[in-house]
Amino acid sequence: MANTILNTIAALEEALPAGRVVRDEETLRSRRHDYWGLQAVLDRGPSAAPSPAVVVRPQSTDEVASVMRIADQHRMPVVPFGLGSGVCGAFLPGSEALVLDLGQMDRLLDVDEKSLIASVQPGLRGSTFEADLNARGLTLGHFPQSIGVSSLGGWLATRASGQFSTRYGNIENMVLGLEVVLAGGRVLRCGATPRSSTGPDLKQLFIGSEGTLGVITKIDLALWPRPDCQQGFAMRLPSWEAGLEVTRELLQGGYRPAVLRLYDGIEAQRNFAEWFPEPAHLLLVLSEGQESMRHGLELEVEAALTACLAQGGTQLGREPLDHWLGRRNHVPSWDDLLAAGLVVDTIEVSATWRNVAPLYERVTTAMAAIPGILQASGHTSHAYTSGVNIYFTFVGQATDPLEQERIYRAAWAATMEATLGCGASIAHHHGIGRVRREWLPRELGDTGIETLRAVKAALDPNGILNPGCLI
Amino acid sequence: MANTILNTIAALEEALPAGRVVRDEETLRSRRHDYWGLQAVLDRGPSAAPSPAVVVRPQSTDEVASVMRIADQHRMPVVPFGLGSGVCGAFLPGSEALVLDLGQMDRLLDVDEKSLIASVQPGLRGSTFEADLNARGLTLGHFPQSIGVSSLGGWLATRASGQFSTRYGNIENMVLGLEVVLAGGRVLRCGATPRSSTGPDLKQLFIGSEGTLGVITKIDLALWPRPDCQQGFAMRLPSWEAGLEVTRELLQGGYRPAVLRLYDGIEAQRNFAEWFPEPAHLLLVLSEGQESMRHGLELEVEAALTACLAQGGTQLGREPLDHWLGRRNHVPSWDDLLAAGLVVDTIEVSATWRNVAPLYERVTTAMAAIPGILQASGHTSHAYTSGVNIYFTFVGQATDPLEQERIYRAAWAATMEATLGCGASIAHHHGIGRVRREWLPRELGDTGIETLRAVKAALDPNGILNPGCLI
Repeated sequence: MANTILNTIAALEEALPAGRVVRDEETLRSRRHDYWGLQAVLDRGPSAAPSPAVVVRPQSTDEVASVMRIADQHRMPVVPFGLGSGVCGAFLPGSEALVLDLGQMDRLLDVDEKSLIASVQPGLRGSTFEADLNARGLTLGHFPQSIGVSSLGGWLATRASGQFSTRYGNIENMVLGLEVVLAGGRVLRCGATPRSSTGPDLKQLFIGSEGTLGVITKIDLALWPRPDCQQGFAMRLPSWEAGLEVTRELLQGGYRPAVLRLYDGIEAQRNFAEWFPEPAHLLLVLSEGQESMRHGLELEVEAALTACLAQGGTQLGREPLDHWLGRRNHVPSWDDLLAAGLVVDTIEVSATWRNVAPLYERVTTAMAAIPGILQASGHTSHAYTSGVNIYFTFVGQATDPLEQERIYRAAWAATMEATLGCGASIAHHHGIGRVRREWLPRELGDTGIETLRAVKAALDPNGILNPGCLI
Repeated sequence: MANTILNTIAALEEALPAGRVVRDEETLRSRRHDYWGLQAVLDRGPSAAPSPAVVVRPQSTDEVASVMRIADQHRMPVVPFGLGSGVCGAFLPGSEALVLDLGQMDRLLDVDEKSLIASVQPGLRGSTFEADLNARGLTLGHFPQSIGVSSLGGWLATRASGQFSTRYGNIENMVLGLEVVLAGGRVLRCGATPRSSTGPDLKQLFIGSEGTLGVITKIDLALWPRPDCQQGFAMRLPSWEAGLEVTRELLQGGYRPAVLRLYDGIEAQRNFAEWFPEPAHLLLVLSEGQESMRHGLELEVEAALTACLAQGGTQLGREPLDHWLGRRNHVPSWDDLLAAGLVVDTIEVSATWRNVAPLYERVTTAMAAIPGILQASGHTSHAYTSGVNIYFTFVGQATDPLEQERIYRAAWAATMEATLGCGASIAHHHGIGRVRREWLPRELGDTGIETLRAVKAALDPNGILNPGCLI
């Protein structure tokens, strides 16, 4: 290991309490990469990710500031780590980097039950936080599939969405206050406020920054009373377009069911085989709120039912919905799939209603044409008045790691190209990381990338924060 | 006029079509300041605002880019102008600046009726846009009091809110795409998307930037079907706290009435004298949506009614509400008020529910203690699960311009100090401009101001854009 790195580590050890700087082989190995599917492929071949130089586990904002000051002085790359559930390769520190592991800053600091605001540390696990809130009769309303394996800081860093976003909004709609340690160790504190017009909203710089602009050390989040009333159903629909039309009609009509998930025939059959021995389109509808709003929720579900029947739908009752609710947080194991000779990934993009029908056609057609791809499919999961996301899934077959890599890269490239070709957006809520990096300039334009670089240079002049990610 | 300015003007005249560069006395005089109350006071004394050096009226993004390139080369200050309705002194160009008047970029470019997205130019007048949308059966849902005298670009630049924001959100929730010309003439284009996670949302840098970071040249906005069903009532309440409690209960219960306005006794009596011969607290409630949602709106209004009655309210029916609806876009004339010896202004701040009760007490008490102040009062107009804004109003009496200035400055200082002292936010939706500038560092902290300055230096290295505003 280079002397400069050893000097930096010595400075960190001197500045921080005992136990914060960790260098044992097992810890270093466990902090090599996140949950990026391609890295799981590469780890099976000669391109396995190296261990980082050192892992630091701060316990306070002051300790994070010390790390950032020392690392900046020594020009050592710093890569923040939450719980490692990212799927785009944003966390891939390399052998010369310091991993800033926020796992010991995992406390729920305060709940203001009058204002419905929680203050949390970034390393807090989503499911732990939600369980704590539930015990107080509250919820955040943010339910990513990864809730059991992802951290609150990670949710902000990637601009995450939850499965119930159509009712509760995405993570950027929930953040009221933010504390961020900048490169060099200065601490930015944006106090919790319902809404302000005090210049540009600085919090938004860090939401989606993927660890490249600062390290989030405290978050103030808007909460809701925990819902105690749920209503919903599943519906077989004659076409993908019929499901899109129902979704659009409900959103534009002012309804906000927590869940509106439209599956194409392939995915309905794969995930709901009991009700779909043959492929057909499936829409899941779920409304939720407090018991005091039961009547309003009934009206919402009734409107959804009416819209579905008008499109020629067949009512399937609650069972498929409950089936999904019971399995929705299952995270598949890349290693198991790859060992079985399957290359699988999901790619979420978003489009306005005008663009969404051609987008689905072009992406699934382009993916299906790739040699080795068995299935190319999609579902929607986050709806807006202006459009919707599509979650594409590809399943490829290959046992050789090089062949697995080829399929993986080709499926992503086909999806990104077709998405850009439709004027749609290349990422709905997983972020850029490394997997989408080469297409970002076409989404943002040259000036967009220059703007991002200029902001990066302004906030992190020595470029120590998560180099190689995003831009 | 200095030679450097004349050289710049010559370069602009050469680069732009005839008629774009305007220097007649009347035009220059009309572009001296915005609708800042203090400037109206100062204009009556020796500190009247000077005319700018030149006004440029571009007709396209390319022309804006030419202006920005030339001005940057010549280091000439550029101050964008929409319709001049700002009330915080953000527009006060001074004698050496170029005013970039966007009044000729005022077209509605496109309406995507399937995705409910409108693309507009920044100089479009709010009321003209809304009337165009209404004719198509649509609405933006953004109704600032200034709608007849403010532009869409100005709404973004100041981070505006409309009177119906509790249902439709604030301006940052409506913007799906944005085109901005940066200093030097590069054009940033963020395409319209329902939602993305492609790094930090660059659009948010410019929303609230008050002309200091770029010039907005095109906006994509999310629309709604025009509501054809309204329900509501007015209620006399026994206390300010009762009205806050009703508002909090409704928002946290998941209701989103378009209007929830709580007036204190002074304002109820001043604005609703027919129903309030004596001071008492007044809550206006209005729900709106499409006829298909009538039943849901009825439930919402019923919930509001029940909450009010539980707090000891007295139902006043629709009339006070209709009275407000009919007068809500009236913009008072500073000159008339000042000529009558009255110094009047409103100051909007925001607070979480935990902070809002002490905030009201401290601000009104502090303002009322200022010699010359006749009345200090407040109302709320934008509600959230986490808190609410308060619109404070002061009425002072003085005929001498110096005395008017003293009262104006003292009322603002008292409000800003008391707001910061309560941990509340100094601006809800009018922005910083010049009137709040000295208090911004205490809201954002030193690192917040440094961050804003660093972003400014990165995007506008020569500092030509609206110098003296915001930071």
